[in-house]
Amino acid sequence: MATSTASSPNSLLFHQSSSRKSSSLAIPSSLRLSKPSSLSLRRISCTAVTAPLSVSSSNASTGRVFNFAAGPAILPESVILEAQAELFNYQGSGMSIMEMSHRSKEFDYVIKKAESDLRSLLSISDDYSVLFLQGGATTQFAAVPLNLCASPDSTADFIVTGSWGDKAFKEAQKYCKPNLIWSGKAEKYTKIPSFDSLQQSPDARYLHICANETIHGVEFKDYPTPANKDTILVADMSSNFCSKPVDVSRFGVIYAGAQKNVGPSGVTIVIVRKDLIGNAQPITPVMLDYKTHADTLSLYNTPPCFAIYICGLVFADLLKKGGLAEVEKNNAKKAGLLYDTIDASGGYYVCPVEKSVRSLMNVPFTLRQSELEKTFIAEASKEGMVQLKGHRSVGGMRASIYNAMPLAGLEKLVAFMKDFQARNP
Amino acid sequence: MATSTASSPNSLLFHQSSSRKSSSLAIPSSLRLSKPSSLSLRRISCTAVTAPLSVSSSNASTGRVFNFAAGPAILPESVILEAQAELFNYQGSGMSIMEMSHRSKEFDYVIKKAESDLRSLLSISDDYSVLFLQGGATTQFAAVPLNLCASPDSTADFIVTGSWGDKAFKEAQKYCKPNLIWSGKAEKYTKIPSFDSLQQSPDARYLHICANETIHGVEFKDYPTPANKDTILVADMSSNFCSKPVDVSRFGVIYAGAQKNVGPSGVTIVIVRKDLIGNAQPITPVMLDYKTHADTLSLYNTPPCFAIYICGLVFADLLKKGGLAEVEKNNAKKAGLLYDTIDASGGYYVCPVEKSVRSLMNVPFTLRQSELEKTFIAEASKEGMVQLKGHRSVGGMRASIYNAMPLAGLEKLVAFMKDFQARNP
Repeated sequence: MATSTASSPNSLLFHQSSSRKSSSLAIPSSLRLSKPSSLSLRRISCTAVTAPLSVSSSNASTGRVFNFAAGPAILPESVILEAQAELFNYQGSGMSIMEMSHRSKEFDYVIKKAESDLRSLLSISDDYSVLFLQGGATTQFAAVPLNLCASPDSTADFIVTGSWGDKAFKEAQKYCKPNLIWSGKAEKYTKIPSFDSLQQSPDARYLHICANETIHGVEFKDYPTPANKDTILVADMSSNFCSKPVDVSRFGVIYAGAQKNVGPSGVTIVIVRKDLIGNAQPITPVMLDYKTHADTLSLYNTPPCFAIYICGLVFADLLKKGGLAEVEKNNAKKAGLLYDTIDASGGYYVCPVEKSVRSLMNVPFTLRQSELEKTFIAEASKEGMVQLKGHRSVGGMRASIYNAMPLAGLEKLVAFMKDFQARNP
Repeated sequence: MATSTASSPNSLLFHQSSSRKSSSLAIPSSLRLSKPSSLSLRRISCTAVTAPLSVSSSNASTGRVFNFAAGPAILPESVILEAQAELFNYQGSGMSIMEMSHRSKEFDYVIKKAESDLRSLLSISDDYSVLFLQGGATTQFAAVPLNLCASPDSTADFIVTGSWGDKAFKEAQKYCKPNLIWSGKAEKYTKIPSFDSLQQSPDARYLHICANETIHGVEFKDYPTPANKDTILVADMSSNFCSKPVDVSRFGVIYAGAQKNVGPSGVTIVIVRKDLIGNAQPITPVMLDYKTHADTLSLYNTPPCFAIYICGLVFADLLKKGGLAEVEKNNAKKAGLLYDTIDASGGYYVCPVEKSVRSLMNVPFTLRQSELEKTFIAEASKEGMVQLKGHRSVGGMRASIYNAMPLAGLEKLVAFMKDFQARNP
């Protein structure tokens, strides 16, 4: 019954000028069509997809690499396999989840289950709305002041610990009067300030932080308390969202692009205290007004259904793994392996970030012999550890080790690092 | 080698309270696991996906339905199968397209190929930028005036032929002084005005139309010419984008949510004349400024990669099918079948839209005996023709028959309609 043929080499012809690896990694030869000549260019001939029996942490049998990309980033293999299995016919509905009306009862279940599981993961109370939006954190850089500041004369405080916080600060200048109360720029964004030393504005409408700076690898381990009880704490949590437990009740707004820990790109999650909704500036685009989406349960217009669906699968997977306390333990173990290797290298590898605020998600590091970095990245890639190049603004290497990166990925990376050091002293 | 087991009924347990059909439609019994008891709740047990050998227009053997949803909507089966085949390991890259950095060479190829194919399909000249954005057409309702109108005192003309045009008009009031130069509301949005009769504003910065009203089924068959040579023609083409050839050079801006004819929800395509870029109002959020995206080839921040990838597959598929002239022929044939059946029913079925402007994409109709409409929809659904319920604001039925709806779907629908009429005279 399991009539199986698979992607013919022909389906790759339109890519033939690229340097991509051969598809033979992915497709067992027994699944290849014997008569590719009957297929036209780009005609998909695959009628069956075979995935490995094991969906655990090893990549040896699957042709999968260890993907250290900063985002879009690695997802749990079990989630991808589940999505793949039902992509053609979602749970007997006769259609793909991609084809399904956002007002169908099937999708209604998907989005509500996703929200419910996220609420469980982060213990989000009914005082908060959970919104599934579009446009990335960058859209929230505008949406936050537009929603929280009654007028362009309102004040907001910004602690800037990296590039993303800086972008949020600059965008806010269009809609309020943001104060830069601390910046790590002079020290190349390697620190988080002591909260006691901050000079907060007495009338700040909100205090903004970026909880984890993806590029610089600096992560808040605790959160500042606004000096004024009416000041709202706001955090961009894009790159450490759902990587550990967070006391949501300390925040007025948490926002996160999904494409690091919880899904593909194309959906942005906003958790906003309900009493803050409904006071947007008159110039706020309807799609940036939290009220629009809170009133309609994120269905004012067509949401990014597929991306929300994948997030839902990830949330369920995180719950199954024991929730965020367990997830944090794993993340600490993984990051510990890498930081320990760097610190034990006698200065061969260097992470510039102050130890107490090193990110569990994004680990930037350089080689003392910087001329070897290109070789390091190329050799690692050959070994199936990809996307290790540092952000263009920083250079060096960066290992993004989100929730879905298995311990085996870190073990392989640190073994490679030690070997590389031994070979290139 | 083709080790095949499939979604166990267990994987549906978390849905057991819904009224969804059994998964037995989709999964041959020979592929079911014999020991579902060993699986935990929601644990995905599928390690192989079997899809039908034939990916043509029939749904009998696949468990697929004919999906008449207005959007998200039916996609070409071959596209879904191609996406499914490579979802776990994209063309030997060792990762899913969902996990791939938007700055990787693989994704760079995907987005450039998508743009290039779209340019071929619509003969888009180099005078235009093609942008892949987020937020749906609704975000463009704000972005268009923010980008085109130098100041809030600028004027723009709106021809409103349905709900979506009306929403665009209302949103524009925040950013310019829009004039409603024609509205079909009094006639329940069943008409398009004669262009000669329009009283255009001499100083209008732009003239806005919605080329196809998804809810009301009214479609422009030609386009008005702005009275003033400096006035820019702008069209929301969400629901008839790529359904027929369009002379792009007549427009300053064309925008379209993808989730009707060209992809899943979550990506919005904007085609904008380059000389119109770079003059956004100072209050424009950076993500709504066309310059942001034109300067970075839609990679200012993380784009909705997966949705863009699917659009690319659809564009390639449309080219393979002979381009938009062929596509339009098919669409005309399909719509003709349905409208002819309605018109030949002796008033049993009624389409309220003026014949000359009936949409080839969305066909609203009612039953003379409106009390039978619920039965009609339920019986059609039983027969595998789903999502035929009209929009809540209009009632009755609506058949959305986008590019990907096969002729067989229309044949089945009209046969059912004739039978229904015979059985319920």
